[in-house]
Amino acid sequence: MSEDLYAVIMAGGVGSRLWPRSRLATPKQFLDLLGSRTMLQETVDRIEPLIPLDRVLVVAGEDHAETVRFQVPGLPPENMITEPGPRGTAPCIGLAGVMLQQRDSAATMAVFPADHRIADATGFRKAVAAAAKVAQDGYLVTLGITPDQPHTGYGYIQRGALLAEVQGLPVYRVQRFTEKPDAATAESFLGSGEYYWNGGIFIWRVSAILDEMARLLPQLYGELQSVAGAWDAPDREEKLAAAWERVPRTTIDYGVMEKAARVAVLPVDIGWDDVGNWTSLSGLLEGDAAGNVLRGKGRSLLLDSVDSYVYSSAGRLVTLVGVEGFVVVDTEDALLICPKEYAQAVREVVKGLETEGLQEYL
Amino acid sequence: MSEDLYAVIMAGGVGSRLWPRSRLATPKQFLDLLGSRTMLQETVDRIEPLIPLDRVLVVAGEDHAETVRFQVPGLPPENMITEPGPRGTAPCIGLAGVMLQQRDSAATMAVFPADHRIADATGFRKAVAAAAKVAQDGYLVTLGITPDQPHTGYGYIQRGALLAEVQGLPVYRVQRFTEKPDAATAESFLGSGEYYWNGGIFIWRVSAILDEMARLLPQLYGELQSVAGAWDAPDREEKLAAAWERVPRTTIDYGVMEKAARVAVLPVDIGWDDVGNWTSLSGLLEGDAAGNVLRGKGRSLLLDSVDSYVYSSAGRLVTLVGVEGFVVVDTEDALLICPKEYAQAVREVVKGLETEGLQEYL
Repeated sequence: MSEDLYAVIMAGGVGSRLWPRSRLATPKQFLDLLGSRTMLQETVDRIEPLIPLDRVLVVAGEDHAETVRFQVPGLPPENMITEPGPRGTAPCIGLAGVMLQQRDSAATMAVFPADHRIADATGFRKAVAAAAKVAQDGYLVTLGITPDQPHTGYGYIQRGALLAEVQGLPVYRVQRFTEKPDAATAESFLGSGEYYWNGGIFIWRVSAILDEMARLLPQLYGELQSVAGAWDAPDREEKLAAAWERVPRTTIDYGVMEKAARVAVLPVDIGWDDVGNWTSLSGLLEGDAAGNVLRGKGRSLLLDSVDSYVYSSAGRLVTLVGVEGFVVVDTEDALLICPKEYAQAVREVVKGLETEGLQEYL
Repeated sequence: MSEDLYAVIMAGGVGSRLWPRSRLATPKQFLDLLGSRTMLQETVDRIEPLIPLDRVLVVAGEDHAETVRFQVPGLPPENMITEPGPRGTAPCIGLAGVMLQQRDSAATMAVFPADHRIADATGFRKAVAAAAKVAQDGYLVTLGITPDQPHTGYGYIQRGALLAEVQGLPVYRVQRFTEKPDAATAESFLGSGEYYWNGGIFIWRVSAILDEMARLLPQLYGELQSVAGAWDAPDREEKLAAAWERVPRTTIDYGVMEKAARVAVLPVDIGWDDVGNWTSLSGLLEGDAAGNVLRGKGRSLLLDSVDSYVYSSAGRLVTLVGVEGFVVVDTEDALLICPKEYAQAVREVVKGLETEGLQEYL
């Protein structure tokens, strides 16, 4: 593979719908939710056969730099980028972009969220490699997740004309990005066969994305240039912090992709899931004969209970009697109980804790 | 009140349906389930204005003698009776009976379970005093709880002819004791107006109950006499333990009351509840506007949740989202979650723990 292909892993999320395991100190991407490796480690493992660690960059909050180093010990120190604070995906990607440009002006960067699950790693790498080829023509390429249900929690990408076929994979121009649709719209999207979920995976030449940022997000671009200019100076961190104070909060989708000129989508069907809440996580794990998924080092005892997810901490016994379709997450200091259909509302708990000043549980 | 009136408080229960708070080491009667005092303490408090502590006897298992002394510090040491093991209410009552007979052959004894709730303590004492008068004629008197629902979990007592009226309270002969009925039978009992719940509260002369035991439970009576003969001897504990090995397991209802000659019932309406499980306990406590009852020293946070009971231990946060009609009991090492309608099945958890050898949670 091209030695100009770099991976940028965005590890700045909060994952509040996976509270109480996901906390400020150890958000979702640093947890072993699906297996023995953390989501970040799985993300690195997945891309490494295509892009070795010396060309993998990780962007995370300052509070989590130590965690990233611990979880990815082979990551070169200069590949760790810390953000002073969360400003959305556009500033995060822009920061990685200007850094990469200084390092390798011909760089192509592939952007991956650190907290998604992809079952078919081989298919994933094949798609990224193909997308990188298309990116050489200046396209901003996104992987389009083939939808299997009319999900209303994701953004959708409508494909346009066929642009190319690379290693057997068709690539389309993007007709349109759509924000999260209502149920009827989502149904019609699914029926048309022309729509894909936006999984937040992008492949582009660094020069291409920065050119579009200069055009579409000039304020952000200006701040990024000033930060880049001070990257090797002693006051780099101050400069970055000051710039980040001024940078407007923007997502890459809204700020760039929806308005950019040359945007392409490469459809994939690779067992993608954003593991958005406890219920979707539970659905990804194998249950017992009663449909119960039991995780954690603690014991659990379920009587007359079905279709439930139980996480039990070491040393504690969790007992369910007559429970159907619930999520129970029992950590050392906090416990969550909710029916599976309320899993999205768990973020409200986190807001409630903030409101009530219960910082110790955040 | 008569100086020959004694209280015998039976504190030998297990309370497995109130697991995980009720444990082998501290069963239900030693817990502060309803307020700041334990069930045992409330039982003592309730009777004390009528029967002072020097005439209150407590029967408990050997493992709990220390707990009784701690919770009822004014109890004279000689009023503490320890059973080598549980053998049902008949041996327990018989043991207290032979002890009392040695102490005061003219004694009248009033028997109370240590783990029931009675809201109207004044009405309760008035009824006990009236029953004690009737008992002077040799009757075995039971308080009959006026039923307010066709409960299928209690035994029922059918009244017969009016026997007396004491201090304005009618007392009837007992027509019949009935085991736990099915729903249709319970409905007909309630409709007839002739039936009362058997709350396990009895008042009788010691000589009367022992005479009936001699007649109806001769083996038990014989063992009790041998134990009584050795009460002041150095080998008393050995004798008692050996006798208890031979004593058959019998309840006072089945062993004596259902077959005895002179049995009376004094109807009461005193806010009685046996606090049989978490759901009935919850119904006795005042909830918030959403019908949630929150107890324990730990914090809890309920979102979109109604009609639930939450017990939270110190230092742990319990969070419910979208939960309706549940019981959540979170102790230091074990957690119970069940819909209120499954509360009776909690005893199956305890059986399951025994089966799986999880002694530490019993």
